[in-house]
Amino acid sequence: MAKSKKKHSLAPQKTKTSAKPGLYGFHAVREAWLNPARQVLALYATDQGLKSFETVIQDSQKCGLKRPAPSVIDKKEMDKILPPGAVHQGLALASSELPETDIQDLIVQGHNADKSVLVMLDQVTDPHNVGAIIRSACVFGLDGMVMQRKHAPLAEGVLAKTACGGVEHIAIAYETNLNRALETLKENGYFIYGLDERGEDMRNLSNLPDKIVLVLGAEGPGLRRLVKENCDSLLRLPTSGPISSLNVSNAAAVAFYAITNT
Amino acid sequence: MAKSKKKHSLAPQKTKTSAKPGLYGFHAVREAWLNPARQVLALYATDQGLKSFETVIQDSQKCGLKRPAPSVIDKKEMDKILPPGAVHQGLALASSELPETDIQDLIVQGHNADKSVLVMLDQVTDPHNVGAIIRSACVFGLDGMVMQRKHAPLAEGVLAKTACGGVEHIAIAYETNLNRALETLKENGYFIYGLDERGEDMRNLSNLPDKIVLVLGAEGPGLRRLVKENCDSLLRLPTSGPISSLNVSNAAAVAFYAITNT
Repeated sequence: MAKSKKKHSLAPQKTKTSAKPGLYGFHAVREAWLNPARQVLALYATDQGLKSFETVIQDSQKCGLKRPAPSVIDKKEMDKILPPGAVHQGLALASSELPETDIQDLIVQGHNADKSVLVMLDQVTDPHNVGAIIRSACVFGLDGMVMQRKHAPLAEGVLAKTACGGVEHIAIAYETNLNRALETLKENGYFIYGLDERGEDMRNLSNLPDKIVLVLGAEGPGLRRLVKENCDSLLRLPTSGPISSLNVSNAAAVAFYAITNT
Repeated sequence: MAKSKKKHSLAPQKTKTSAKPGLYGFHAVREAWLNPARQVLALYATDQGLKSFETVIQDSQKCGLKRPAPSVIDKKEMDKILPPGAVHQGLALASSELPETDIQDLIVQGHNADKSVLVMLDQVTDPHNVGAIIRSACVFGLDGMVMQRKHAPLAEGVLAKTACGGVEHIAIAYETNLNRALETLKENGYFIYGLDERGEDMRNLSNLPDKIVLVLGAEGPGLRRLVKENCDSLLRLPTSGPISSLNVSNAAAVAFYAITNT
């Protein structure tokens, strides 16, 4: 048994440059490596990166996951195959994309659960912000995310790094028309809250519906008019200081906390 | 009256390159420009940046603030005088530094207030994170921040940009020894909460003390041992999902919300 696993040994392999790594950084690479829904094409690691990854490889072997042997490369080579400035921590992964999700999948999933909380991003496109929101959504146990296909950043690179592996754990539905998606969600029993500074104080929330969509707009412009009109209710975060608005990922984290703990 | 203010006109000036701009981005520049505690040495603006700043200049004139005439430069020149990749929105400012604060100032300020909530950063040094924490601290009306002098990033550049002008509104004390600072704060009636995953669930907070310090450690290592031992109580954020830890600025925002609304 132990012998047959030797093929996943840590012995250095010649670099394959054919498979382009879309993921990098310890957490992003680890969660993708351990995700059975991903087919892994190549793991690129520096000596040090590989050392930090040893137990992860052992865990995946115990799970019986089919994974390629790591390709050991030096830091210079790593910098060359990744975007400039990528904080890779000596690890990069080339893999298949995650299976596509749409809101019907989220609705079916919510149908089978006691509660369902989704987050929708309206024109929030900065990959750092989207990544941090995905991470927070995972921390607070949200059930899915909806983004507009046209504006959504790819769930890889800096987004996946910032999400700290969160992209493997939350279903993300990419929709062409967010207003149509909201209509469909409402028809399926979801109550739509929009985050807006003119909304009701979030501290007054009580008796929350079982199925919720929280819609977040971009910093500055906020929710687009039609999206806002499609919300059942608007909520605002209580602020008391000289600066009135939080960074969108910080606002998301506070709203997730408030909604999942009311 | 109106005539005497003509010296602050929007007429383009020849670029002065002597004063190095430490601040850039609309919000950071606006809040510094309007802060009477700042002596402004130069405002560099592109045509478009200047246009967006017109009402701010008018407001400062109404307040009687002494400000130099803006130096209009082109985008290429702006990119040259700022760090690579700086998101400047056509505005950069060279100014005096903010007056130094130490914890005695914070203690005196807290002594005169009904309530006082401070945040201390233990080894949190990434300027994006520190900037976002300053912004959130301002939004939730915190009264001051304490950082270790040796590790603290400068309150300018990307930190000030991310703080969205928050550095002008919150007193930041730079201390050599954080443990000694905690002792002094405790002697002056402050109750010290540390954020730690082994702490008490933050949702159970009630009857909070009037004077609070919330201590945040770096992602990964968390609070250092001595700092943790110096806390009166440890608190944790409730998490329920597949990822267990928030980004530190997101954790800070949630903790500020919970503490200022309990």
